[in-house]
Amino acid sequence: MRLSELFTKTSKTVPADETAKNAQLLIQAGFVHKEMAGVYAYLPLGLKVIENIKQIIREEMNGLGGQEFIMTSLQRKELWEKTDRWDDNKVDIWFKSKLKNGTDVGLAWSHEEQITEMMRNYISSYRDLPAYVYQFQTKLRNEIRSKSGIMRGREFLMKDMYSYTTSDATHQKFYDESIKAYQRVFERIGLGKQTYLTFASGGDFTQFSHEFQTITDAGEDVIYLDRSKKLAVNQEVLTSEVLEQLGLKRDDLEEVKAAEVGNIFSFGGAKSEQLGLYFDDEAGHSRPVILGSYGIGVSRLMGVIAECFADDKGLVWPEAVAPAKVYLISLGNDPNVVKAADELYKRLTESEIAVLYDDRDVRAGQKFADGDLTGVPYRIVVSDKTTLTKKHELKPRTSDKTSLIDTNSIVKSLTDK
Amino acid sequence: MRLSELFTKTSKTVPADETAKNAQLLIQAGFVHKEMAGVYAYLPLGLKVIENIKQIIREEMNGLGGQEFIMTSLQRKELWEKTDRWDDNKVDIWFKSKLKNGTDVGLAWSHEEQITEMMRNYISSYRDLPAYVYQFQTKLRNEIRSKSGIMRGREFLMKDMYSYTTSDATHQKFYDESIKAYQRVFERIGLGKQTYLTFASGGDFTQFSHEFQTITDAGEDVIYLDRSKKLAVNQEVLTSEVLEQLGLKRDDLEEVKAAEVGNIFSFGGAKSEQLGLYFDDEAGHSRPVILGSYGIGVSRLMGVIAECFADDKGLVWPEAVAPAKVYLISLGNDPNVVKAADELYKRLTESEIAVLYDDRDVRAGQKFADGDLTGVPYRIVVSDKTTLTKKHELKPRTSDKTSLIDTNSIVKSLTDK
Repeated sequence: MRLSELFTKTSKTVPADETAKNAQLLIQAGFVHKEMAGVYAYLPLGLKVIENIKQIIREEMNGLGGQEFIMTSLQRKELWEKTDRWDDNKVDIWFKSKLKNGTDVGLAWSHEEQITEMMRNYISSYRDLPAYVYQFQTKLRNEIRSKSGIMRGREFLMKDMYSYTTSDATHQKFYDESIKAYQRVFERIGLGKQTYLTFASGGDFTQFSHEFQTITDAGEDVIYLDRSKKLAVNQEVLTSEVLEQLGLKRDDLEEVKAAEVGNIFSFGGAKSEQLGLYFDDEAGHSRPVILGSYGIGVSRLMGVIAECFADDKGLVWPEAVAPAKVYLISLGNDPNVVKAADELYKRLTESEIAVLYDDRDVRAGQKFADGDLTGVPYRIVVSDKTTLTKKHELKPRTSDKTSLIDTNSIVKSLTDK
Repeated sequence: MRLSELFTKTSKTVPADETAKNAQLLIQAGFVHKEMAGVYAYLPLGLKVIENIKQIIREEMNGLGGQEFIMTSLQRKELWEKTDRWDDNKVDIWFKSKLKNGTDVGLAWSHEEQITEMMRNYISSYRDLPAYVYQFQTKLRNEIRSKSGIMRGREFLMKDMYSYTTSDATHQKFYDESIKAYQRVFERIGLGKQTYLTFASGGDFTQFSHEFQTITDAGEDVIYLDRSKKLAVNQEVLTSEVLEQLGLKRDDLEEVKAAEVGNIFSFGGAKSEQLGLYFDDEAGHSRPVILGSYGIGVSRLMGVIAECFADDKGLVWPEAVAPAKVYLISLGNDPNVVKAADELYKRLTESEIAVLYDDRDVRAGQKFADGDLTGVPYRIVVSDKTTLTKKHELKPRTSDKTSLIDTNSIVKSLTDK
């Protein structure tokens, strides 16, 4: 994409109403727009990052046998009453509204109840199981405060998956596979090293649930991690019994701030009993379906990536989620330079290498600064100097080393990556 | 996809609470799930149709120079007060809620105000124009009644595009191009013949706006069309003056029911003045930006397609939007048949032909009935008879003619299409 055509602009001014680094940088770089506190629109470059993250998650969920669909934002009160989660004293982050006839409706902050009730249409026998379903869906949560930028929004994008199985054993097998799939997701988007499988409290049905926590000072959680074992425990389960059970020693644990980027949870048969989701087993006995729930905060991940990798020059995107691979700068208006840059842009684009082409009529300094702020993995400069040698200047975003390299070699090295 | 693994099921029972054919069939075939009146979830097959429609629209909007992004569902009251559209007496389809601190928020039924205000961050000079932006976004509209299935939802998916230009002349040029792009969209998704460019009232700024109306008895509008000229007028502008102006004769017009699948609208500079979106022209004079708005009802289109093409056996999808190209049926459990069907499934899938493989252990009659109900363009049957001859039975959904044809020829004929 040519930046002369992109409608967004970068800004040198740090937004006065944002304290979170992720929101400051994402707004300055034109990736998001703040509609109100905790409510952000995703502009073209931001939407690209979101779609890249979604696609990685989608591939891994499909690999687990997950089937994608999408539920609704408007929800019926009755279902939430069945599980005693309609009352504002029980769930304090509801947005609610009313139909014209006065009927209460809720705006979705979760979909467990709705999906489980819907599954009654499709599950009646053990033959209908297992079923694994997931969606990417906007959730609305009426948070009192919202100061972490896109890391804790009142409106945010989540991937939520649900597993329906016949027994604790088949549930546990899928649950364990989902842990591995989640680890692949975080590895692929570039947060593998910083993200820890974390034991958290399990509620009524299991001793533990699991969180995936990414180490960052911008996180709102505190976890205790054993770096060598690549495991962590949440504050709420930090007891001697649990540590012994997990083979962890208190002295080996490090207290760090972290952001919860995913969680997985077992409900046993309890929620199915509340909502009436039963199946006939092979002996003809009616039993509640075993339910698991598996979330990943998609927009939060984008914020966490911004927090983890940004430097004093701006954003730094891992290649797999970056809005483009190359930030191409043409220096000056010399027709030879413009021609060479246009040709390189065409060649890279034809080679399916995504390029942000800074063809704007602005100072060189602004192009360099905006390239850094935007955080695209590679910068290429075409100038009168490089045009003479037919070699272009290539520099990774995270290094100061430049190399002079011809078009064919650039295409080859960026395609191999 | 193997139907033995798909979690949805077909149903023989017509849903008692649905009067609209589109909703009845889409629910029976497992494409959508009704959460409440006018509020539908999109199950795997339904989501595929939606994504196919979106992709066609996306390609055409990108072809116009449109840049995709996504706004928010939660909206501030103040913006809507500036254009006098917050009051329930002015806009009677609001869903509203409140933040914890009591601040009113609206749930998006439109985004013109939000996007136009946001553009103040990016537009200040004629050099920043034109800008064309669009999104696919869920809209919430608090309709009193909702009886047309997914054709008029309380929650539905829309593509909305906005054009920002410096002058009426550049606006008009883009407006005319958008008419052509819209016609290509309806042509590509299979509704070209039934869809008419329709003159409607233009509001304060222009004499006309334009609608795209698809002829269907399920439509809620009445239009007057001249089939030979491929033009129509809406009831509200059916006057002798208008007919004369458009070169139409009252006697040539046919009154038909139709569904509005798209509309385009010019706002002139008025909305920009209300929201403070000005630019400096080349002479340095501050002028309001000229705004146009361009909608397509994505989920409505899916309903209209269902209404237009369904027959007494079920849904009929045009190839470009169908959830798959082939409905593959294996008859019986003979290992040779299963093997041949498995091999054909693999071969088609590898050739990037999307297949619904009915490998379920159910009666032949149910497979045939479900194949018809699902409405996939081609049915292929593998049986002990076809296995002997190494030819499979191919039948288009809209014809009774079957042909016996070998695997290579099937792949070739379906890939060429």
